[in-house]
Amino acid sequence: MKHVFPFAAIVGQDAMKRAMILTAVDPGIGGVLVFGDRGTGKSTAVRALAALLPPISVVSGSATNAASEGDVADWDKGAGREMRDVPTPVIDLPLGATEDRVVGTIDIERALTSGEKGFEPGLLARANRGYLYIDEVNLLEDHIVDLLLDVAQSGENLVERDGLSIRHDARFVLVGSGNPEEGELRPQLLDRFGLSVEVRSPADIEERIEVIRRRAAFDTAPDAFVQNWAAGTAKVRDRIIAARARLAGIETEDAVLRSCAELCISLGADGLRGELTLLRTARALASYEGATKVGQEHLRRVAPMALGHRLRRDPLDEAGSEARVTRAMDSVLA
Amino acid sequence: MKHVFPFAAIVGQDAMKRAMILTAVDPGIGGVLVFGDRGTGKSTAVRALAALLPPISVVSGSATNAASEGDVADWDKGAGREMRDVPTPVIDLPLGATEDRVVGTIDIERALTSGEKGFEPGLLARANRGYLYIDEVNLLEDHIVDLLLDVAQSGENLVERDGLSIRHDARFVLVGSGNPEEGELRPQLLDRFGLSVEVRSPADIEERIEVIRRRAAFDTAPDAFVQNWAAGTAKVRDRIIAARARLAGIETEDAVLRSCAELCISLGADGLRGELTLLRTARALASYEGATKVGQEHLRRVAPMALGHRLRRDPLDEAGSEARVTRAMDSVLA
Amino acid sequence: MKHVFPFAAIVGQDAMKRAMILTAVDPGIGGVLVFGDRGTGKSTAVRALAALLPPISVVSGSATNAASEGDVADWDKGAGREMRDVPTPVIDLPLGATEDRVVGTIDIERALTSGEKGFEPGLLARANRGYLYIDEVNLLEDHIVDLLLDVAQSGENLVERDGLSIRHDARFVLVGSGNPEEGELRPQLLDRFGLSVEVRSPADIEERIEVIRRRAAFDTAPDAFVQNWAAGTAKVRDRIIAARARLAGIETEDAVLRSCAELCISLGADGLRGELTLLRTARALASYEGATKVGQEHLRRVAPMALGHRLRRDPLDEAGSEARVTRAMDSVLA
Amino acid sequence: MKHVFPFAAIVGQDAMKRAMILTAVDPGIGGVLVFGDRGTGKSTAVRALAALLPPISVVSGSATNAASEGDVADWDKGAGREMRDVPTPVIDLPLGATEDRVVGTIDIERALTSGEKGFEPGLLARANRGYLYIDEVNLLEDHIVDLLLDVAQSGENLVERDGLSIRHDARFVLVGSGNPEEGELRPQLLDRFGLSVEVRSPADIEERIEVIRRRAAFDTAPDAFVQNWAAGTAKVRDRIIAARARLAGIETEDAVLRSCAELCISLGADGLRGELTLLRTARALASYEGATKVGQEHLRRVAPMALGHRLRRDPLDEAGSEARVTRAMDSVLA
Amino acid sequence: MKHVFPFAAIVGQDAMKRAMILTAVDPGIGGVLVFGDRGTGKSTAVRALAALLPPISVVSGSATNAASEGDVADWDKGAGREMRDVPTPVIDLPLGATEDRVVGTIDIERALTSGEKGFEPGLLARANRGYLYIDEVNLLEDHIVDLLLDVAQSGENLVERDGLSIRHDARFVLVGSGNPEEGELRPQLLDRFGLSVEVRSPADIEERIEVIRRRAAFDTAPDAFVQNWAAGTAKVRDRIIAARARLAGIETEDAVLRSCAELCISLGADGLRGELTLLRTARALASYEGATKVGQEHLRRVAPMALGHRLRRDPLDEAGSEARVTRAMDSVLA
Amino acid sequence: MKHVFPFAAIVGQDAMKRAMILTAVDPGIGGVLVFGDRGTGKSTAVRALAALLPPISVVSGSATNAASEGDVADWDKGAGREMRDVPTPVIDLPLGATEDRVVGTIDIERALTSGEKGFEPGLLARANRGYLYIDEVNLLEDHIVDLLLDVAQSGENLVERDGLSIRHDARFVLVGSGNPEEGELRPQLLDRFGLSVEVRSPADIEERIEVIRRRAAFDTAPDAFVQNWAAGTAKVRDRIIAARARLAGIETEDAVLRSCAELCISLGADGLRGELTLLRTARALASYEGATKVGQEHLRRVAPMALGHRLRRDPLDEAGSEARVTRAMDSVLA
Repeated sequence: MKHVFPFAAIVGQDAMKRAMILTAVDPGIGGVLVFGDRGTGKSTAVRALAALLPPISVVSGSATNAASEGDVADWDKGAGREMRDVPTPVIDLPLGATEDRVVGTIDIERALTSGEKGFEPGLLARANRGYLYIDEVNLLEDHIVDLLLDVAQSGENLVERDGLSIRHDARFVLVGSGNPEEGELRPQLLDRFGLSVEVRSPADIEERIEVIRRRAAFDTAPDAFVQNWAAGTAKVRDRIIAARARLAGIETEDAVLRSCAELCISLGADGLRGELTLLRTARALASYEGATKVGQEHLRRVAPMALGHRLRRDPLDEAGSEARVTRAMDSVLA
Repeated sequence: MKHVFPFAAIVGQDAMKRAMILTAVDPGIGGVLVFGDRGTGKSTAVRALAALLPPISVVSGSATNAASEGDVADWDKGAGREMRDVPTPVIDLPLGATEDRVVGTIDIERALTSGEKGFEPGLLARANRGYLYIDEVNLLEDHIVDLLLDVAQSGENLVERDGLSIRHDARFVLVGSGNPEEGELRPQLLDRFGLSVEVRSPADIEERIEVIRRRAAFDTAPDAFVQNWAAGTAKVRDRIIAARARLAGIETEDAVLRSCAELCISLGADGLRGELTLLRTARALASYEGATKVGQEHLRRVAPMALGHRLRRDPLDEAGSEARVTRAMDSVLA
Repeated sequence: MKHVFPFAAIVGQDAMKRAMILTAVDPGIGGVLVFGDRGTGKSTAVRALAALLPPISVVSGSATNAASEGDVADWDKGAGREMRDVPTPVIDLPLGATEDRVVGTIDIERALTSGEKGFEPGLLARANRGYLYIDEVNLLEDHIVDLLLDVAQSGENLVERDGLSIRHDARFVLVGSGNPEEGELRPQLLDRFGLSVEVRSPADIEERIEVIRRRAAFDTAPDAFVQNWAAGTAKVRDRIIAARARLAGIETEDAVLRSCAELCISLGADGLRGELTLLRTARALASYEGATKVGQEHLRRVAPMALGHRLRRDPLDEAGSEARVTRAMDSVLA
Repeated sequence: MKHVFPFAAIVGQDAMKRAMILTAVDPGIGGVLVFGDRGTGKSTAVRALAALLPPISVVSGSATNAASEGDVADWDKGAGREMRDVPTPVIDLPLGATEDRVVGTIDIERALTSGEKGFEPGLLARANRGYLYIDEVNLLEDHIVDLLLDVAQSGENLVERDGLSIRHDARFVLVGSGNPEEGELRPQLLDRFGLSVEVRSPADIEERIEVIRRRAAFDTAPDAFVQNWAAGTAKVRDRIIAARARLAGIETEDAVLRSCAELCISLGADGLRGELTLLRTARALASYEGATKVGQEHLRRVAPMALGHRLRRDPLDEAGSEARVTRAMDSVLA
Repeated sequence: MKHVFPFAAIVGQDAMKRAMILTAVDPGIGGVLVFGDRGTGKSTAVRALAALLPPISVVSGSATNAASEGDVADWDKGAGREMRDVPTPVIDLPLGATEDRVVGTIDIERALTSGEKGFEPGLLARANRGYLYIDEVNLLEDHIVDLLLDVAQSGENLVERDGLSIRHDARFVLVGSGNPEEGELRPQLLDRFGLSVEVRSPADIEERIEVIRRRAAFDTAPDAFVQNWAAGTAKVRDRIIAARARLAGIETEDAVLRSCAELCISLGADGLRGELTLLRTARALASYEGATKVGQEHLRRVAPMALGHRLRRDPLDEAGSEARVTRAMDSVLA
Repeated sequence: MKHVFPFAAIVGQDAMKRAMILTAVDPGIGGVLVFGDRGTGKSTAVRALAALLPPISVVSGSATNAASEGDVADWDKGAGREMRDVPTPVIDLPLGATEDRVVGTIDIERALTSGEKGFEPGLLARANRGYLYIDEVNLLEDHIVDLLLDVAQSGENLVERDGLSIRHDARFVLVGSGNPEEGELRPQLLDRFGLSVEVRSPADIEERIEVIRRRAAFDTAPDAFVQNWAAGTAKVRDRIIAARARLAGIETEDAVLRSCAELCISLGADGLRGELTLLRTARALASYEGATKVGQEHLRRVAPMALGHRLRRDPLDEAGSEARVTRAMDSVLA
């Protein structure tokens, strides 16, 4: 079995780790876009997240990880009757994946054998109720990115090709990593990700040394290393499970709604997706931290990752997007 | 069953809602183009519309939703004999849909089984007598857009490919959403849409808060929310049905025809499609509001959505298209 | 049965109507290119023309509408022995038509069934002895346009593909509509159309109102409307039939030949296709109007549509092509 | 049977007619490129040429028109044993011809029936020992033009595709027509044609009238017209046959060789293809005119068509290529 | 058997040879990019390396060179039970290799025979536990390069195409050669190679003569030449084997970690991949040279090849990357 | 049987003829690039070379012209047991050749018949031990040129496509002709050819006349012409055979090695391919002329063709490459 670097052993990168935890608490927040320099551990973090997530209960054999018999698609011949716990799916979208494997396609084997036109589900089906990870979203072909965002948004995969007309659930958290040096992402694309975080190489030398030391330790003796960090990882997982249970009960007062709206107007963020995401993320944070109602402090702590990628560029304001969010919070929030 | 956000619960966006209602009263008005910022609820409105429309009566099993046995295409082997009420079809055109699935294609299964060359209808057949919805019309390939507009205009789908030569009814209201930031639409394309409306994020903070509040309520307890708004939705649907019945009887006096023509000449709108659409839309509005004849006030209220997208750009006139339409109305209409 | 707006009920647009009538009198004139603004009724006129044309006598079942048994192609297995009257074919070339459906292709069904390589004729075969209509010639792919013009010119369709080597008659009048705003047409392409006419939205308000009134009447009660205009339509059809019968007997004096040549030299029209088309069109007009010989007045009335699209652009002469033709006629014709 | 406008009835265009006759006398001269305005009768002349050429003797059923049993390709299963006279092939290369139909391809029918990989010859095989005509060489895809010139040059068609490795004779005269307005032809392409002639609309009004008169006569009563010109056509054909028989015996004195070389050096024509073509063409002319040896006067009359398209552009010399050839001849030839 | 030029007989090019040896000691260092002029023996060196590497022990018949039964993929039907020593695989990626052959594809033969959808592994499978060599990385298509780097980084090949969903080990050292004259490599691509070395034609004439002399000797009598250098080659191979055994035991003191971090910060190298590679390479060098712990001197000697290709371009610093690394070492290292 | 113009009858063009002869003496020299004007007899010379080369001894039926049973590839089912003398293969690469026919592909016939996946070799296999001729290397697609040069360099054809993984010998001399007017060749491509020669139309009039005279004589009476030059051709062939036998014994003193290196350094030729090719070519020349050792005079005579195409462009030195080579030789060689 291959060893995965433990989530808890990642040095620094707090924003990235928090964003991932919050989408685990409430997948409705939407995807996470992680952008930053080469070699800052983006892929490592996603792999670590997979090992951290609580299992889900699925209809055995279901190609879409159906949560109950009622959710089993009619084309899903492999689905059984009993329920089973499986790890939360974290599906990789490899470069070179063809559109037919992403959305699904006609089942050639069945077509040849029985002459029937069956559906062979793709990665979008397998990612249902889990995560879909795209490393280097910049390198993916545009039409596949558009397609993924479209599905991520609607939660459904519509397949209209090869003479098939299929529709199945495809609710997943999209995690993309990108490098802004390889060309800016389109604003429309940015907006479709719920959260965005930037990662940088640590400037602090002690932190850098610690990274190298842990990595060297993991490379040399992975078993021991994973063992050492097991408790830390379990603690995070338990908090996620508890936060999920509490989430529906978190109170939201009108003052908080108003703050969300004021923040977005103040920042000139397009559309209303900003407010809605900001609120959901703040509620998830409140729940993760055991609060009973969401407060302005929660807004303050998630606003940069929920709004930073939705700002229009302002030629008269040279401040970075994080600074602008902070400034807006200072004037809007109590 | 998946819950749909109720039409009546949409906050503001009156022009968009009215345009959708009027095409429901008279589908002959042609399509609706909704353009505007990200996250302003364009998709939500279309989904809500689907739940609002009255059912249609179709020949059971007909692939083109035929209204009577006489309308059943000769290739339509699945059509039965009895009539049946079904929801007005609102067909999604997903990104990645291939041309063969849009227009229809050879029926491979029948070809392999029986050696006959049958027709397998596409989305255009399924959309007959209903709506075809394209989210992000900007992202669709040009040749598919041209093809859709061509069919939307003629009401017929001609298939000349794969050795097939098929012709079937394809009368539908095309609803497209677009984002002008992603590049302007071609004038020719604009002209083919009957109506156009622009949506914006509400600038009013109370309205924004109300949007967030309703959305949060819907997300938390969708059943109750839909129930609460059921009466409002039913009221709109009943008015649409009544308006349809009255439509043929709406009187049109010559003064109104003259106003239509004068408005279009004054605005320099190309061609005659402007007048014809303006008149139909005004008649639909008169009918929806229970009037017995169409008047200048009806023209005034629909002229921006019927003419705004048909103006030539005037380099000496910096006013927006809506302001120009209003100014023309002020000088032309009584 | 679908109702078609009657040819006789079209308001104004005299040049377009005359061009269509004259090609009906003598299909040897070549195609008609109708260009102009959006929404000026180009498509409506072509549909109306189809209902106007006299029937043709064909070998029953012939895929190319053969006029006699001698004209039946050897691959045309469906052709019978008796003759039959059928409406003059007016074939639409839909956007998205593939090259194989235009020129014809291998007959897959026969290939699979009997292992023989048969020919399945395309739109060019069906259009033989009739009309082929291309709406928006600008949107068609270049290679298909080139191919159509090539066939229209030679009157034969040569198929050299899929291992087939077929040649069949394809004499048709090509009717294309275009919008000069979507880019100019290549001179070579223009020259291949026999006639060209420009249509504009009427500037006269009474005419505009009349257009809207008739359209509204047709939309409201199509049966009655078509009935009302039946006599006008029949009158035009009868004149076309009579003109065809008289055509061979129209005299052409040398002075007219000389005028044709002088006009073209004076205008600097390239090649001799101008003279030949001008003469044929004038003869068709003479015949349509019951004259026994073609005169200079006939030339004068058809010269703009026969020559206007063949002028070289003259940077020192800002007059439009129609004005230039008129000026040349004034100096050349008696 | 379709009527063809007689070669002898073509008005003017002497250079074009002479070039075609000379390649008929000696096909080794290479192809003819006819370029010029639209509607100057380029296609008409090629069709007329086909009716003029003497028949050839071929192995019956041979796909390559083999001249003797020894020339029958081993894949040519249809070739019989007796010889037969057939018209000289003049093969049209239609726009839209696919590469596989031009060069030949695998014989699908045989492959499916017998599982053998046979060769199905293409247009290049059918054109062997005859003419291959490309109307509008400008519109053909570059890679097909390159391929044709390559084969025309070597006289062999090498097929290396679809798992086939075939080589067969493909000696033909390539006749291309082009319009310099649609973009210049590449120098390399020009050089591969043996002769080039330019055609223009006649400037003389009497000549233009005569063209219209003859065309009108042909259109009205083709049988009589063809009959009237039969003797003129037969006379040309007989002279071609006689010239072919005499060709090998035409003497060529060294002074003529020297003049060829001096002319080409004086003109700065690249390569030696100019001299070789000039000599062959002059010999063909001498033979056609019944001379026993080729003289400087023959050179003088064919030099423009053999050399005019091989000149480098000289920025300091604004004279046209024909004037430059004439000037060179005046200084070089006696 | 084909003779390979011996590694030990390569004249000069010490950096390239050292880089290759160190990746042989620790394949975890990552790939080597060799860039430089044409004809400097890049390919020769890679071929020589193949002959130098110690054999590996694999499951007999395993398509991925599995190291134990537990590593055999479930689709790998050919894998046996006993272990076998085979040469370390050095797989060439030829130009023209298709993506399906690189990543693997459906096994057509099995599909046709048994109707099962099996996997036919590609070059990535065969390269597992060995080297993959790309000559002229510049000429490879971008999407294949991206794909290779992605796999090289993760050590796994994910195949999502042709209806397959396969995952197998693909741990290999990627060796690429490139020519900077043919366009710069993207920074992202550079960063994915562990080491980079530049080769130049020797400027020293005696060295050049020695190169020619050895090459001439090898060409004339390859057997004798290889024999003469056998001992030198064996010596290097033995040192590699010894270094591998010692590698895990090499001590790394904190001062060295600190130097790694300081060097990278001082150079402004992006990300942390620089530190990690620098450390691994220095450890491999220490082990190859028989040291028991890694020291600053080892860092000094491998820093140029581990860091030189990771520098951001500095417009104010005209020094080459090697000089900048040296300067940084002088200021950072003791 | 087709007549080929005799090598010995080619007028002038000494450099081209010498380059071809020397590669016949030692194929290890690498390919020849012949560039120059149109119509200078490049193709004629290559055809003539084919008739000049001595036969080779091959395993009968071997698809790769294997020199012994040990060289027969395992997929080469047609190879027999006895040896046979065949003409040295000179394979044409026609324009339009597809990649699968160049490198080889799956044997469809065998696949369909027996279900086995066999290899059907391509042109590279047939060219083994011979010549591969590309007329107009400029017109070939880049990816095929890259592929050919790659194989020509390595002497092996690696096929990784269509589920095949094949490797076979492909040692051939690549002869390419090009026209510098059609765009410069890439430096990398130039470097891969061993020798390059430029051909020009003769400026001398007597030489031009002689060319025309011989060509006319050949065209008129090819049998007699070939017969007349048979002795001259045989003499060259015998000298080639003798030179091959002597080649291994030619001595090479260190002074010559030093001169090679000095020349290349003086000229700034990249890489060491220059020295190596220069030496081999000089040795071949020495052998062809019956010398026992290679001397500076031999270097002098082949340096322009071995080095002329490897010079970097020097903006300060306007001399042509040949003049620069000569100047370098004057200063370096004794």
